[in-house]
Amino acid sequence: MRRWNGWGEESTSVALPEQGAAFLAARIGAGRPLPDASLDSVLARVPASRLPPHPLWATAADDRLRHARGQSLPDWLAMRSGDFGVFPDAVAYPETATQIRELLALASAQDLSLIVYGGGTSVAGHITPQAGDRPVLTVSLARMNRLLELDQSSQIATFGPGANGPQVESELRAHGFTLGHFPQSWELSTLGGWVASRSSGQQSLRYGRIEQLFAGGTLETFAGPLQIPTFPASSAGPDLREMVLGSEGRFGILSEVKVRVSRLPAQEHFHAVFLPSWPQALDAVRELAQARVPLSMLRLSSAIETETQLALAGHPRQIAWLEKYLGWRGAAQGKCMLTFGVTGNPRQNAASLQQAKKLLRQAGGVFTGTLLGRKWAQSRFRFPYLRETLWQAGYAVDTLETATDWSNVDHLLHRIEASLRGGPGGEPIHVFTHLSHAYGEGSSLYTTYVFRAAGSYADTLARWHTLKQAASRTIVEHGGTISHQHGVGRDHAPYLPVEKGALGIAALQALASHFDPERRLNPGVLLQP
Amino acid sequence: MRRWNGWGEESTSVALPEQGAAFLAARIGAGRPLPDASLDSVLARVPASRLPPHPLWATAADDRLRHARGQSLPDWLAMRSGDFGVFPDAVAYPETATQIRELLALASAQDLSLIVYGGGTSVAGHITPQAGDRPVLTVSLARMNRLLELDQSSQIATFGPGANGPQVESELRAHGFTLGHFPQSWELSTLGGWVASRSSGQQSLRYGRIEQLFAGGTLETFAGPLQIPTFPASSAGPDLREMVLGSEGRFGILSEVKVRVSRLPAQEHFHAVFLPSWPQALDAVRELAQARVPLSMLRLSSAIETETQLALAGHPRQIAWLEKYLGWRGAAQGKCMLTFGVTGNPRQNAASLQQAKKLLRQAGGVFTGTLLGRKWAQSRFRFPYLRETLWQAGYAVDTLETATDWSNVDHLLHRIEASLRGGPGGEPIHVFTHLSHAYGEGSSLYTTYVFRAAGSYADTLARWHTLKQAASRTIVEHGGTISHQHGVGRDHAPYLPVEKGALGIAALQALASHFDPERRLNPGVLLQP
Repeated sequence: MRRWNGWGEESTSVALPEQGAAFLAARIGAGRPLPDASLDSVLARVPASRLPPHPLWATAADDRLRHARGQSLPDWLAMRSGDFGVFPDAVAYPETATQIRELLALASAQDLSLIVYGGGTSVAGHITPQAGDRPVLTVSLARMNRLLELDQSSQIATFGPGANGPQVESELRAHGFTLGHFPQSWELSTLGGWVASRSSGQQSLRYGRIEQLFAGGTLETFAGPLQIPTFPASSAGPDLREMVLGSEGRFGILSEVKVRVSRLPAQEHFHAVFLPSWPQALDAVRELAQARVPLSMLRLSSAIETETQLALAGHPRQIAWLEKYLGWRGAAQGKCMLTFGVTGNPRQNAASLQQAKKLLRQAGGVFTGTLLGRKWAQSRFRFPYLRETLWQAGYAVDTLETATDWSNVDHLLHRIEASLRGGPGGEPIHVFTHLSHAYGEGSSLYTTYVFRAAGSYADTLARWHTLKQAASRTIVEHGGTISHQHGVGRDHAPYLPVEKGALGIAALQALASHFDPERRLNPGVLLQP
Repeated sequence: MRRWNGWGEESTSVALPEQGAAFLAARIGAGRPLPDASLDSVLARVPASRLPPHPLWATAADDRLRHARGQSLPDWLAMRSGDFGVFPDAVAYPETATQIRELLALASAQDLSLIVYGGGTSVAGHITPQAGDRPVLTVSLARMNRLLELDQSSQIATFGPGANGPQVESELRAHGFTLGHFPQSWELSTLGGWVASRSSGQQSLRYGRIEQLFAGGTLETFAGPLQIPTFPASSAGPDLREMVLGSEGRFGILSEVKVRVSRLPAQEHFHAVFLPSWPQALDAVRELAQARVPLSMLRLSSAIETETQLALAGHPRQIAWLEKYLGWRGAAQGKCMLTFGVTGNPRQNAASLQQAKKLLRQAGGVFTGTLLGRKWAQSRFRFPYLRETLWQAGYAVDTLETATDWSNVDHLLHRIEASLRGGPGGEPIHVFTHLSHAYGEGSSLYTTYVFRAAGSYADTLARWHTLKQAASRTIVEHGGTISHQHGVGRDHAPYLPVEKGALGIAALQALASHFDPERRLNPGVLLQP
């Protein structure tokens, strides 16, 4: 059973090792847990629906509660406290494109707002209903989750938009293919959500971001269905796929998604290497990307993230030995861990590995084999579960991410971290960053910050708000995009005009008016009213 | 001096070897040349301008004549016959973004239409002025052709939009960089034109299409400047670059273009290999693309193109020896030539070559070393000059191109060729095709057709029109895009609604109305009135 008030499956949890707790306590003080609301108490508080019963939707409190919030920290605090605020009036579970069209017609006829719901994993407030006169119908695509067609010659798979990561991969694997799209939310997030929010995966270096994987499909809009045929490439005017990618449900609801798939690789392994210092590590990663070494993933942890990861890994004796060895080889205080993957045929992989090793050794890199890489691969989707563990220990954790050109990466990283460290009221904040997507032009920056829950939910939310606002402003004022992989939602919408400009925002509004003249779809998401 | 009535520099010409002429005569009959109009006679026919003199534009007949036509076959026939039809009323040569804005303001104040002119190399009727009440001002960006900034760390170069291929590459080469964008029109076409028409280059397999190279810049529009910042990637809503790419001057005029550049490769070479048959060759190329063998270019000629190229190459004795050798090795009648490139560091190249050779040998490929590949590289921009030579011999030549998914490549190729071979009135047409851009999902198809000039210019144009219409219909009705690399212009605009759909076209019209409410920019291009 999926957790109603947090991440993932109830049966899965990740322990915080003793050293990890001590590490955090030393840095930001002991955590003070806040009490969780019970499911029953929250169910009792779900108000009556403003919508009449209908065969296409459910108005039961349980459905509405389980689709009311995503996974942003404000969502999390709402769920843990039980103060949900607004609930959707009903949840629809369409099974066909025709039913989606019926729902659009009903929304017009009955003056509804619609919220499009994929896996409910948004960390930017995409699916949170707002108070207003229009009843709110959340449209879950969970039942449209099948592989509908596979063109093995063209390597194009057609899926329902609601297929989540495991569903996509297991369907494809049966035919010897993979999509290769692995965001950290992979266990729950969906193909349609990835497309609508321009998602990126851990191995996008090889397989491409969702922009490169999305080949075509159908978007159901209030102006009719937008059918986008598949072509390997085209110069026939602006690309209609780009009106769907990043549209965040504002222009329409995907009913079918065609994606480019790959044959399963013959071989894949992940390596960990420690670089002596951040400047050396940064240069090495840039060089790997710009030399086009065909790696499948790259993740470079800052010195503080490296230290934090080693502390939270458990196994203190082995870690101590590792650090001794690294120190002896020149990677001591300030060392940075780089994890990278090679994926493909063994000959290709050997050539890629050879190139990477040569380049990293020149940068002072110390290789530690594939054990840490295997650990990373095994636990690659576990990180979100740690939020639960930390919460129970009295700590709130959130992440922020952006991307910028190489000439600005170091500057922006330090600005973001500084904006968070100078937290509210002198409260200590533990902040660390990694680069997880390296491009020829620049890199993503992914910053995690951990802070103690305040004395109440309201104060904890206020603490978060101060931090989030400071960091978001810093990002857009210092040459970063407001999101590299999480999307805009409601939380980032105020910052979007800085990067799109007034004219760019107006152009997006023009498209929204074209596809959804009465503004029923995801109001307030992406574009502020 | 650039030719006023054809392709390229007056000082450059490509000879048609005796065997080539005999080859064509045997297939489609002897050519019957039509007389060319003289420059003086055409200059005398340029009507008075409807525009008053202005410091920002020239109204001289010579300027107007030299910016009146592109390089489509109808343009070519207009230039050779001297029947230009409409001339622009003036040609502006802005040198700054401010001057572009002044021109936009003047266009509003004086009720003008504007045509944006890059290198004048359109083969789809992008720059041909139309008759109408509004005076026509052609805006040439030729003087905005400088490298303005180079961020070596982020590998981003900022250029004026009018920089042509040699200008772009020579500026970058001085700093050790390359853009790596080499369309066949490279000698004359411009960066702004590549962006506005979603261009692809011969080595896009390595460097990416212009969509991947275009990082940001400024589009001057009637609604104000659209400034697009550079990010390596972003999930912050729809990508504004995609409103510029393929906009073909309908939304605005580029005043600055930022592109992703690469360090000059340490090594580059091109190989030729002959496959015994088309089906084997097609499978092999698909496999190379889907296995992600890191090649920098791929060009697979059909059996007829292979035969034609060998006939037109001259050196009949050497070619006879080559064919003897190939036949002895199993590549006889029906053989297909594949040219491919490896570009990068020597170790990478060796690994790529090894993979390619293994795969191609399994498909029966016979390698002939790098001599033919070197020949290809030397003459890669010479093909357009051959049109001049063939024209003087009494033949018209045109090309058509599309892209489709692998499962449809063979079907579409045969349909297109059949639509052309069944030419007007039983006139024989020499038709051949190559695949020049291979993707995991599919491939481009590039078809050349040669036919005799008819007894008059009007009849020759009618012959072309019948052929072009038949092939264009075939493309869009059989799963191809109306263009993979040439763009839409006026010639392909009638076919665009088939692939974009009515709703897609309406969305693009909504954007055009947003940026250019009075429809002054390139009217009739991309979107029909």
